[in-house]
Amino acid sequence: MRRMRGFKELVGVEDAVRIVLGRLAHRVREAEEVGLEEALGRVCGEDVEAPMDSPPFDRSSVDGYAVRAEDTFGASPNNPIELRIVGEIAPGDSPSTTPRIGRGEAAVILTGAPLPWGANAVVMAEDSERRGDIVEVHRQVRPLQNVSRRGEDYRRGEVVVRRGTRIRPWHIAALASLNIPRVKVVRKPLVGVLSTGGELIEVGGRLESGKVVNSSKPMLKSLLREEGAEPIDLGTVPDDLEEIRGRVREAIGGVDALIITGGTSVGERDLVPEAVESLGEILVHGLMIRPGRPTGVGIVDGKPVFMLSGFPVAALVGFDALVRPTLKAMMDACEEPRPRVRGRLTRRVTTPPGTRSYMRVRVVRRGGETLVEPLMLTGSGLLSTLTKANGILIIPEDMEGFDEGERVEVELLREIEGG
Amino acid sequence: MRRMRGFKELVGVEDAVRIVLGRLAHRVREAEEVGLEEALGRVCGEDVEAPMDSPPFDRSSVDGYAVRAEDTFGASPNNPIELRIVGEIAPGDSPSTTPRIGRGEAAVILTGAPLPWGANAVVMAEDSERRGDIVEVHRQVRPLQNVSRRGEDYRRGEVVVRRGTRIRPWHIAALASLNIPRVKVVRKPLVGVLSTGGELIEVGGRLESGKVVNSSKPMLKSLLREEGAEPIDLGTVPDDLEEIRGRVREAIGGVDALIITGGTSVGERDLVPEAVESLGEILVHGLMIRPGRPTGVGIVDGKPVFMLSGFPVAALVGFDALVRPTLKAMMDACEEPRPRVRGRLTRRVTTPPGTRSYMRVRVVRRGGETLVEPLMLTGSGLLSTLTKANGILIIPEDMEGFDEGERVEVELLREIEGG
Repeated sequence: MRRMRGFKELVGVEDAVRIVLGRLAHRVREAEEVGLEEALGRVCGEDVEAPMDSPPFDRSSVDGYAVRAEDTFGASPNNPIELRIVGEIAPGDSPSTTPRIGRGEAAVILTGAPLPWGANAVVMAEDSERRGDIVEVHRQVRPLQNVSRRGEDYRRGEVVVRRGTRIRPWHIAALASLNIPRVKVVRKPLVGVLSTGGELIEVGGRLESGKVVNSSKPMLKSLLREEGAEPIDLGTVPDDLEEIRGRVREAIGGVDALIITGGTSVGERDLVPEAVESLGEILVHGLMIRPGRPTGVGIVDGKPVFMLSGFPVAALVGFDALVRPTLKAMMDACEEPRPRVRGRLTRRVTTPPGTRSYMRVRVVRRGGETLVEPLMLTGSGLLSTLTKANGILIIPEDMEGFDEGERVEVELLREIEGG
Repeated sequence: MRRMRGFKELVGVEDAVRIVLGRLAHRVREAEEVGLEEALGRVCGEDVEAPMDSPPFDRSSVDGYAVRAEDTFGASPNNPIELRIVGEIAPGDSPSTTPRIGRGEAAVILTGAPLPWGANAVVMAEDSERRGDIVEVHRQVRPLQNVSRRGEDYRRGEVVVRRGTRIRPWHIAALASLNIPRVKVVRKPLVGVLSTGGELIEVGGRLESGKVVNSSKPMLKSLLREEGAEPIDLGTVPDDLEEIRGRVREAIGGVDALIITGGTSVGERDLVPEAVESLGEILVHGLMIRPGRPTGVGIVDGKPVFMLSGFPVAALVGFDALVRPTLKAMMDACEEPRPRVRGRLTRRVTTPPGTRSYMRVRVVRRGGETLVEPLMLTGSGLLSTLTKANGILIIPEDMEGFDEGERVEVELLREIEGG
């Protein structure tokens, strides 16, 4: 065995991210303009300012009667106040053509319709009774009650969606309400995914004895798609230094970042770090995480080259710890940490000191309590721990574990089970 | 004002969903087969069983030496045990061609390589030292240590992904690892979105005085896309009974469900319930939610017709409360409730009794504590409360609010701010 030694120095996750971000020359900041609905899920590429006040005029927020609030003071079911109806206002009517409301007068008004001149409040239909041209008001209103003020939602010039925000349906509604039909979004980063390992076959291929299906590549491509990046499948190369070097050199010009899986450890076939070093520089090799210790990052032509484990669970942990934050920073996108819940640990868990462990757990609600059950199987190749888990319990570097019954915080991968 | 009256009877959210599901004749259960990577985000249409054991053979989970565990008992740095190296095994080697390990023997083995005959454990490289054909073992291993057992991840016939699961990257990895290249997914439901209201213009149109941009339609289309449905834009009709009826009758045959916004309340221009009733049946009209009280559901040709408020925030609440669970049930998809967090309320909140209120809040972490700050603006048209909020505090029907300082549970819309 030519080389079988430990990592020179293991680096903590936060340090690794800081090191990479500090050295990154290449960024993905160019924005492209797209139609509003196409912007869903993309990263906003500009601070979008409101071009006008919204609502653009004072309007009623209920169906009822536009009135002068002073005229209703003291009104009650036993002491109704009568007002004379002088008009009707519907949504879509121009504020400039509404009737003028004088003392003792009211106008029928529908939700969303402009508040007429003279009126300063709206009596809800349920708090009144109409008799011909007269409305009996049964409850007093204060000034501005049931009125949406001009600019109450957004004032002209106010930032509606910040650069770096991932655009969700409510952002689309807000931009639409301000009549903004197109928006600039950051272009999707192109990320190459290259697998190494002579034992790998592509899914659906002939699974000869001893061969292994490459499950990390389709997973990483899916993770990149969920992240808003565009994966470029660079195939698989055997554990051969020249072939790995050649493929990286060939690919790096056409991508914003590169992920290489497998061959990142310190065994004799682990040639990826050597290949990357020969083309650029290794920034980090060996992370204080479990699983995923062989994870590393280099820089080639100013672009990050991530070296992830070939084992899918370790590759996922490496992606979360290193690839995701780096891509976000390259796009200047806001962080989107996973939601977390606290719960009581059902079993003691331990990890080696100085290592951040990502433990797959099941979070369940039982009898009104949130319980965190560590999954027994923790091998880095065990996908079942991921498909059965709904959360990740992170044990930080400075702890060796948690006791049974301790309250711990879990990152949720998906919904909590039970009720 | 022809009709301006209250709702006959307000219905609770759970009851409404139960009523709708109980009456739904139309379902979306047909599955279509897609390539594995295309299945991302889709609802799995079958219970996918493992066609083989995974891993398909016992393999090493580390780089090191395959040994008979018994031979290492008592080994320590001060008392190393010497074994004779009889071969090397790499990932991809066939299990049937590996060397046979006898007493006092070992084989070099790399991570993922098949465990050779005779061996039952692997000594990690770090716990050994090689001298030519001899390896000194410095730490004993127990049987099966550092070995991934055949079938340890998935046993043949075990269900890997259940019908109704939304397929995420780790499911794709699990299916790939079992060499499953295609998977059946439930087809995307087609959902028509029709807006009513003469005051509405489409985003980007000319915003004349008194007109309002239709912000609910692009939001609902985006929500449907996020949910895995295919929205069909049916445009906007004025508040005219015959036009609404005509558009619903024309559209219902080509969709799996219909959403109509606006005109769902009890004012004179609220003609949608009448139109739906004339073509089918109203199941629910008037929900005990705030905002979103005018929300309703009818059935036309066995398909659900959702009547949502024209105001975007109320439309969103109605979508969450009614449309999402109904679509999931139509597809037989598993529930995906939003993640929740508990935090301390920074200000008292109150709501009318008998109403489920959806209050938009900001969840922040400050000084190690999770705080829930209710947003002041709560109008159903106020989109800024949604773009500024990161969570929804639900006040149930049987409560009138929460006190300042009380611990409350919040549904997270996105990440928690602060550290």
